[in-house]
Amino acid sequence: MQDSIYSDYPPPLSPAQKDFLVTTVKDWTAQHGLMVRPAPSFISKESNPHGVLATNAPVTLFPSPFPRSCFEEAKALQTVYNQLYAAITCDEEWIGKIMEDLIDVDDFISNLWKVHQDVKKEGYTQTLSLGLYRSDYMTHAPPSSTVPALKQVEFNTISSSFGGLSSLVASLHADLLNSPPGHPIAYPSHPLFNSNVPPENTAVETLSAGLATAHKAYGPSKSNPDLPTCILFVVQENERNTFDQLALFRHLTKVHNLPVFRLLRSEILNHTSIADSNPSRPLVYSPPHSPKTRFEVSTVYLRCFYAPTDYTSERDWEARTHLERSAAIKCPTVLNQLAGCKIVQQVLAESTGPDHLAHFLTGTDPATINRVRATFAPQYDLSSSGRGRELALNPETALNHVLKPQREGGGNNIYKDAIPGFLRSIPETEWKRWILMELITPPAEAKNVALRSDGEVLGGHVIGELGVYGTILWDQAGGKVLHNEQGGWLMRTKARDVNEGGVATGFSSLDSILLF
Amino acid sequence: MQDSIYSDYPPPLSPAQKDFLVTTVKDWTAQHGLMVRPAPSFISKESNPHGVLATNAPVTLFPSPFPRSCFEEAKALQTVYNQLYAAITCDEEWIGKIMEDLIDVDDFISNLWKVHQDVKKEGYTQTLSLGLYRSDYMTHAPPSSTVPALKQVEFNTISSSFGGLSSLVASLHADLLNSPPGHPIAYPSHPLFNSNVPPENTAVETLSAGLATAHKAYGPSKSNPDLPTCILFVVQENERNTFDQLALFRHLTKVHNLPVFRLLRSEILNHTSIADSNPSRPLVYSPPHSPKTRFEVSTVYLRCFYAPTDYTSERDWEARTHLERSAAIKCPTVLNQLAGCKIVQQVLAESTGPDHLAHFLTGTDPATINRVRATFAPQYDLSSSGRGRELALNPETALNHVLKPQREGGGNNIYKDAIPGFLRSIPETEWKRWILMELITPPAEAKNVALRSDGEVLGGHVIGELGVYGTILWDQAGGKVLHNEQGGWLMRTKARDVNEGGVATGFSSLDSILLF
Repeated sequence: MQDSIYSDYPPPLSPAQKDFLVTTVKDWTAQHGLMVRPAPSFISKESNPHGVLATNAPVTLFPSPFPRSCFEEAKALQTVYNQLYAAITCDEEWIGKIMEDLIDVDDFISNLWKVHQDVKKEGYTQTLSLGLYRSDYMTHAPPSSTVPALKQVEFNTISSSFGGLSSLVASLHADLLNSPPGHPIAYPSHPLFNSNVPPENTAVETLSAGLATAHKAYGPSKSNPDLPTCILFVVQENERNTFDQLALFRHLTKVHNLPVFRLLRSEILNHTSIADSNPSRPLVYSPPHSPKTRFEVSTVYLRCFYAPTDYTSERDWEARTHLERSAAIKCPTVLNQLAGCKIVQQVLAESTGPDHLAHFLTGTDPATINRVRATFAPQYDLSSSGRGRELALNPETALNHVLKPQREGGGNNIYKDAIPGFLRSIPETEWKRWILMELITPPAEAKNVALRSDGEVLGGHVIGELGVYGTILWDQAGGKVLHNEQGGWLMRTKARDVNEGGVATGFSSLDSILLF
Repeated sequence: MQDSIYSDYPPPLSPAQKDFLVTTVKDWTAQHGLMVRPAPSFISKESNPHGVLATNAPVTLFPSPFPRSCFEEAKALQTVYNQLYAAITCDEEWIGKIMEDLIDVDDFISNLWKVHQDVKKEGYTQTLSLGLYRSDYMTHAPPSSTVPALKQVEFNTISSSFGGLSSLVASLHADLLNSPPGHPIAYPSHPLFNSNVPPENTAVETLSAGLATAHKAYGPSKSNPDLPTCILFVVQENERNTFDQLALFRHLTKVHNLPVFRLLRSEILNHTSIADSNPSRPLVYSPPHSPKTRFEVSTVYLRCFYAPTDYTSERDWEARTHLERSAAIKCPTVLNQLAGCKIVQQVLAESTGPDHLAHFLTGTDPATINRVRATFAPQYDLSSSGRGRELALNPETALNHVLKPQREGGGNNIYKDAIPGFLRSIPETEWKRWILMELITPPAEAKNVALRSDGEVLGGHVIGELGVYGTILWDQAGGKVLHNEQGGWLMRTKARDVNEGGVATGFSSLDSILLF
């Protein structure tokens, strides 16, 4: 059944149909802000010296079929996942043990842990913690299966992106499916299109509501005299995915009526301050365009600091520590970021040893816990001899696996037959930096056509990844949960011959879904 | 009073303030579709082969002060102006007389007139006619005056553009004035900003409602068997102002739920047809992306064919004739386009001879007619000796005038001291192609800062031009008016040292207004 859905999808396009779709998508994206700044490889700085140009985000021309059961399951489990990662973050000792091994070999993890230790020594002044999460899944449909299963690829606890753009892609595809009103002909006809549109996508509303809830929970100004409070987005230099962030910015401003500012990572120490004299340590922001005005930051929303490349000097670690020790609610704290390391996912998925999952989800009914567990793909520690090393070094079993670095931020996965050779090429002491994960088998016949940001149109076999957004606000002192919501989703679709790549790097496209 | 408003406006910007405003405007425009396609002089076809790039429309950083009395007067007179141009269009004989002189010397006018004559010979099958108009004004404030006066620059009866983008500029400036909510600091403080935002701009709603009203008035299909009806936007090749048009397209689709298509001028004869066998001559459109589907065009909305450059071959005239003879309601008809020639404006403004204005506005109270008349700047015919030639050839009086070609579409105005020399350089038989108009004296101290589409930021003295939109649907057989509305406005601001230029060519910027 599953294969038959994918095998004749999408319907073939005549040159005129393709032309119409591509032109319509190019215009729609620019009209609705489904845009990115062009990569320097596409448009050089010299030909665009003032950085005014924008281009479409990479998008598929068609929504992708997705099993309704998997979609509903991912949504149903999101608040449980939120709770799980909040509970893990509250268990500092447990995280510390997990990190112990890594600290020796991974500077990034080691530095993050040090930030936390330093602030802990001084004492945290803010116990509320905000998570804006995205849990990423693939459908697992090996030839033997009859019903597709939902398998988690990763769980993002920092800078979970594309919520702003993904709701726009759903609107784009919905508009195409209804175009023109009453007589839809933008797409060739196909049974999947009959009275079907992508499910509602409330990513912008959900993520914004998370930030607004934290802002409100922060309460009155801790400064003397009182200052107006604001939310601060901390962002990267040369960010190309600006319009994704601005969708949340706009919603917070227009719907929640809140002051929001964007600040470059490199400018944190220039424009924010914490008065030594105030033991509450409110974070005060002076906008450079109005230096006499001061705001107190209720919530720091990090859209940077997730990858080692975001820390180019000691000053960046200083800035991170500065934010961490402030009274602002962090989205996320360093501990919450560490809870998102792939090693945590692997430890949770371990089939031998203590049942960490049940431990962290105490109070959740066992059936639900088992549904969460069912989303784990088998994962293995490589730090010592055992099942993991066996599977990785055997060329036959390696074919069914991927080797992932424990660090966040993607990149450098090693696939299949490359695994044994790669492991032998690095010192055994470094193997613990890697996690072996059983490959998920997505629908073999899935196909789509994508419009890249440089305007190239590429079609072929694809792999889709569904992300589901959730937000949680909790008190790190005691673990009380103040807000726990799911809402909104992201479909990313990449060409099957590409093993890896984030959307922003152009190897994959934003997509939406049609449930079947 | 007026001068004092302008003399300290806009407030000066520090480098950080300018930086913030420019960055914010660049991002806002891309997020909200306040965009144009980049000019080839900025980004070459080679570096953007698939045409995906977009850039901000040229916009001012600040809204411009505008006298409330002039704004209200322009709005109050718009439906009267709508009625005036409908009445003129109904008087074919009167237009014919006006055109008589021009036909010899102006191929463009001559060809338009011929299209009308040809269709008239065969017999029009559609008597309803739709006007989407924009009346453009400047405020006239010579040093002697105490109260600024409203003076009409031109009245556009075809392809009145920028309604879609101008409402976005009003939103942009309103957002900046309120940013962040509760503590506005995007702009330096200025008395004009206190609790002030640009007036509501309903250009998209008004223009779309005009098109939707015509669509409805067209009634049921005249084809056999019945076809679904649609609105057809006919557009230029290499249009850079696409997103302005798409704002109306989206509103018609999303709010009025109507099928709308865009068709290139050069493709009219390829994809539309009129069956010889059907005496009603319904215009049938077969979308190239769905060639088996056929729609009957209720309303043809021309965003082309307004300038001689839109007719590159006999085939273009054939296409125009094809549309004109069809049963579709034209926005506008050839006659309505001709009514918008500058010579008509000049004849209406003539202070000697018959009172054409009163004649066409029979039934309108004399006070209102005089208010319309008060918006005319003195204009003179140059076809024969008289006051016009005197003023134009005298170097002293020429300084207070502009020489305008009678054709639509702008371009090639001759200013002040260049007038006598120019006239002497062309044969006297061609003088009748030009109209001499007294220069309007806009506020001398008006200043603003503009972000061009290539990212350059330019500040200085400016001249502003306010356009007010109106729509009218009438029956050409008898003149009965079925719909007459005003709504929405456009502010265009250009550097004062630039005498001429449409927004799309980059010499001037879209703007909004703050009333005082």
